[in-house]
Amino acid sequence: MGNQENEETILHHQQRRRVEVQAPPTKPFTESLKSSLKETFFPDDPFRQFKNQPLSRKFLLGFQYFIPILEWAPRYTFDFFKADFVSGITIASLAVPQGISYAGLASLPPVIGLYSSFVPPLIYAMLGTSRDLAIGTVAVPSLLISSMLAKEVDPRTNTKLYVELVLTATFFAGVFQASLGLLRLGFIVDFLSHATIVGFMSGAATVVCLQQLKGILGLLHFTHNADLISVVRSVFSQFHLWRWESGVLGCCFLLFLFITRYFSRKRAVFFWINALAPLTSVIFGSLLVYFTHADNHGVEIIGYLKKGLNPQSITELESVFKSTYLLMAIKTGIITGIIALAEGIAVGRSFATYKSYHIDGNKEMIAIGMMNIAGSCTSCYLTTGPFSRTAVNFNAGCKTAVSNIVMATAVMITLLFLTPLFHYTPLVVLSAIIMAAMISIIDYEAAIHLWKVDKFDFIVCISAYLGVVFQSVEAGLMIAVGMSLLRILLFVARPKTYVMGSVSNSMTYRSIEQYPDANSVPGILILQVNAPIYFANASYLRERISRWIDEEEEKLKKSAKYELQYVILDMSGVGNIDTSGISMLEEVQKNADRRCIKLLLANPGGEVMKKLNKSKFVDKIGHEWIYLTVGEAVNACNFMLQSCKPNTKAVVESEAADNQV
Amino acid sequence: MGNQENEETILHHQQRRRVEVQAPPTKPFTESLKSSLKETFFPDDPFRQFKNQPLSRKFLLGFQYFIPILEWAPRYTFDFFKADFVSGITIASLAVPQGISYAGLASLPPVIGLYSSFVPPLIYAMLGTSRDLAIGTVAVPSLLISSMLAKEVDPRTNTKLYVELVLTATFFAGVFQASLGLLRLGFIVDFLSHATIVGFMSGAATVVCLQQLKGILGLLHFTHNADLISVVRSVFSQFHLWRWESGVLGCCFLLFLFITRYFSRKRAVFFWINALAPLTSVIFGSLLVYFTHADNHGVEIIGYLKKGLNPQSITELESVFKSTYLLMAIKTGIITGIIALAEGIAVGRSFATYKSYHIDGNKEMIAIGMMNIAGSCTSCYLTTGPFSRTAVNFNAGCKTAVSNIVMATAVMITLLFLTPLFHYTPLVVLSAIIMAAMISIIDYEAAIHLWKVDKFDFIVCISAYLGVVFQSVEAGLMIAVGMSLLRILLFVARPKTYVMGSVSNSMTYRSIEQYPDANSVPGILILQVNAPIYFANASYLRERISRWIDEEEEKLKKSAKYELQYVILDMSGVGNIDTSGISMLEEVQKNADRRCIKLLLANPGGEVMKKLNKSKFVDKIGHEWIYLTVGEAVNACNFMLQSCKPNTKAVVESEAADNQV
Repeated sequence: MGNQENEETILHHQQRRRVEVQAPPTKPFTESLKSSLKETFFPDDPFRQFKNQPLSRKFLLGFQYFIPILEWAPRYTFDFFKADFVSGITIASLAVPQGISYAGLASLPPVIGLYSSFVPPLIYAMLGTSRDLAIGTVAVPSLLISSMLAKEVDPRTNTKLYVELVLTATFFAGVFQASLGLLRLGFIVDFLSHATIVGFMSGAATVVCLQQLKGILGLLHFTHNADLISVVRSVFSQFHLWRWESGVLGCCFLLFLFITRYFSRKRAVFFWINALAPLTSVIFGSLLVYFTHADNHGVEIIGYLKKGLNPQSITELESVFKSTYLLMAIKTGIITGIIALAEGIAVGRSFATYKSYHIDGNKEMIAIGMMNIAGSCTSCYLTTGPFSRTAVNFNAGCKTAVSNIVMATAVMITLLFLTPLFHYTPLVVLSAIIMAAMISIIDYEAAIHLWKVDKFDFIVCISAYLGVVFQSVEAGLMIAVGMSLLRILLFVARPKTYVMGSVSNSMTYRSIEQYPDANSVPGILILQVNAPIYFANASYLRERISRWIDEEEEKLKKSAKYELQYVILDMSGVGNIDTSGISMLEEVQKNADRRCIKLLLANPGGEVMKKLNKSKFVDKIGHEWIYLTVGEAVNACNFMLQSCKPNTKAVVESEAADNQV
Repeated sequence: MGNQENEETILHHQQRRRVEVQAPPTKPFTESLKSSLKETFFPDDPFRQFKNQPLSRKFLLGFQYFIPILEWAPRYTFDFFKADFVSGITIASLAVPQGISYAGLASLPPVIGLYSSFVPPLIYAMLGTSRDLAIGTVAVPSLLISSMLAKEVDPRTNTKLYVELVLTATFFAGVFQASLGLLRLGFIVDFLSHATIVGFMSGAATVVCLQQLKGILGLLHFTHNADLISVVRSVFSQFHLWRWESGVLGCCFLLFLFITRYFSRKRAVFFWINALAPLTSVIFGSLLVYFTHADNHGVEIIGYLKKGLNPQSITELESVFKSTYLLMAIKTGIITGIIALAEGIAVGRSFATYKSYHIDGNKEMIAIGMMNIAGSCTSCYLTTGPFSRTAVNFNAGCKTAVSNIVMATAVMITLLFLTPLFHYTPLVVLSAIIMAAMISIIDYEAAIHLWKVDKFDFIVCISAYLGVVFQSVEAGLMIAVGMSLLRILLFVARPKTYVMGSVSNSMTYRSIEQYPDANSVPGILILQVNAPIYFANASYLRERISRWIDEEEEKLKKSAKYELQYVILDMSGVGNIDTSGISMLEEVQKNADRRCIKLLLANPGGEVMKKLNKSKFVDKIGHEWIYLTVGEAVNACNFMLQSCKPNTKAVVESEAADNQV
């Protein structure tokens, strides 16, 4: 007993000198809730710029916040416009054939595909934050729309009702997308990691590339599936239908595009060659077909297009609102809306990463939603940022969303006057443009980098790639996001624990694994936990800590010099703890007590200290056994080891022996 | 330029004295993969006890590992047996009516329900690791079986084929459950947190309690749904059918059980009163009914039961294996198997938490799987550890799985000889026993404790409770597990960052929020990140760090004394980093460079340092700017601030001005 008193005196002596570990001052519950909600939903602190501003300025800033074009338009230069003009015209030349073919996928009249490249891009240019996204219709949601709605209404026999249904579904898709943004759920976008995007983009590029074989080889029928196997099978099963004329033309244009890119990469002054190449190809291809009549020799052309701008379609929406199909339209809208949104945001974010600027997920969702709402009132069906068109836009050197305005204007002019000019544009040129753009997107170097730096990221990347190539775009995205989440869960479920030692005999203690020269302290086991202690790892940590203690005792038993008397848990890396974690610590302490080992804590953080206090664990372990640094904890242990010989363990054991007698 | 040289000299000078931050020695890829797989799937290190043992001992240990009864049976005492005997008899008295009613739910002949309480408990007693789990059939999977299989085969017109199908489904459920365990996926159990379990158990207890109103009030028809609203509606809509005789008897028994519990809680010697009360109630109730003929006055009794043990049923399985129904049986088996497994493990884990011992998730899965495989060959349908029966077992004071053996023996004797004795047992007594057990399980005190210590855990707990009470057991579990996972994701997605200051002017730096007395260092911003830097938080951290810098600069601008020149990132709490995180750091550094602020890192851990090295970030930031401790980094900054006046920022700015001229 005298021994224990002695120990307490020493501790009291120390107590006076050392800084106590504190819990942060308690905040009222509502305040801490408010601040954590703010960090979760408003991490960009959008209200900060409004603070301390006069009302008129606040008004202007508010407008700029919701309509980003007001913010960047004043800084817009003529140089930007030159680039945007070229890229806008280039994607407009893609918009016409893509619009027609995707409208076919959705079982809609071809002209609706063209309408959809007019109104939505204008809306997006005003509201969107991406500089590269080219707005248009997309393959997968187009297919989905027809597969969901054609079950209810036959598009061939009842075209009017079918179109009304599709427009209503587009309206609800827009409402759903915009409300996700308004509810500040844009951070969902953060869950698309760099590795996911590299894999997803390379996979999508591979698939889109393969699909262009249809255009290059002049095939009339082609699979609607986007996976490698279907596409390759579709190409080779139609071997007898390959058109060599089309193929030769396609290869020539492809070669032309590659050579121009090669030159422009060699010397920066040749940049314009690359940027103008697609448009040149379109003009040259059209002229070639016009003069050689190649369209009669296996070279597919766009053909005749109806004139006239988008009619309004609010009455069409109204008629569905009153019909029994409303529920079906809502369901289709939500499902296709979320897939289109995921593609648009993933694509936007991917190109933003390439150019290293940032897009605001919430604003993107609102922009995409608003453009679909506006589109549904002007005879447009579901649009988003398709990968292929955006890649061409990026490759043509676009600078801002003005390229969308240029495209929309070009499509408008086309709808009004120029449809005859595109009559002779060969599809093979458009395929070559897309193919050339795609090949430069397949980023194998990034994958190699991922392998070198982070194996898990590489696996995520490859899964996304294989998922997209062999299954579908959504499957690839799902697999990659799922694996990325699994990684976070695994990090928490199986945290690393390290034994620490003193670095160059200073008061600094670090993991022995990282600093092999660090010296462990005899009789004291110092463990570092490097993750929050949550239910998911509580059992694991209990097992792991007891294994560390077992191993240390075995090691010491061999040397027969010291006994393990103190275990110090370094809590610096423990960001938070929950009630399962606290129970785990209690069990560890009980376990240690049973073995006559004293448990000490070093440097628990604010959140952890708060919870240990509230759960009375601090009282159980004793506040004097919680130290500010590992160094102080070790000093205290050493001090007691030296001054309390014969050591406490022997005393306890002899006491136990006494009791037995 | 002279200034820069000067800075480098100083750094070189320091370099010689300080310990460099190292990356841990690189391990070959296969080795690190092996060790991380081991930590993930074999965290309990089951092979450790086999090491350095003679072959015969290894053999014995292996047997003990796979058949846990061999491990604990030698330590079994007569005192344990007394407790197990009482609880075994008590649960046997429940097994008979429960077996009958659940078999009805599954549209099976009643006797199969009794068979299912004979073979599976014996298997579980040998292989299971829970001491409280009482094996038997369960309500939800029973309902599911009939709803899935009765669509294919009508149980009334084609009973033989239907029974064959159910047995085959049970076989596949067992195979599926056992393989989950063999694949070491037992850690899935860790994702049921303490808070989840408190809420889930209280909710299940509430629902089971309410369902007993059927027995207490002598109702003949009752809802199959388990949610509060259906049950309350079912009770009150049948107001005119309430039997007062049954109700009075039920209340008397309930009162008797509560009084005995009250006494046994008052004084430990009265423990036996409580343990024997249920059995006493059954005997007394049966005698009462026998002598008063209460069964003719509205008191429901169990009634006539067929005699004879389980027939073998391998031939039944064989016939389905050859039939076209095989696929349906496999599907039903997997779905009901996973739900039964979740219930069994959640219940087992819950009671293990109460008694603070640990169950091995993998062994549990194998045990539950094996007992269903064995059961399917002996005319038993799907069994697991039902909540109600386990709660009664626990309340009756069971010590080990021997209570299951006692129950099985009792059921066997019942099947062989005693069915007439249970003829007059009133159902109301069994309802009272279950109800009394359930009420003691509703743990509102634990919920209050959760509210005090951890608000989020409280929300998880309440969600689980409300989900179970208002929806279903599975829904409650799903919601709670989902929310628990969301918490982990939120922890990573929105990590805490703190500004640090020097504690009592020592070399120790801690968060100013936790230690309000800590002094910040003028001109230097020290930030601490407390979570791994992953894709999920990379954008957030970039925003947050630049906000910290903005705020610091604003503050310093007001004082007009110092300029912000150094930002030190304390990486002690950063357990890991991925490629998105590294890109983020690169951007932060670029950003700081643009503002003429120097970025320093303090104490990056082993994993982080390894990846920073591989990605060449260390070269970009400069190895000399990475310090072992925050203190050293601050010293270096201060040293440069003092020796390099006029400060670097002014120099850079004047240089920029020169260039413009």
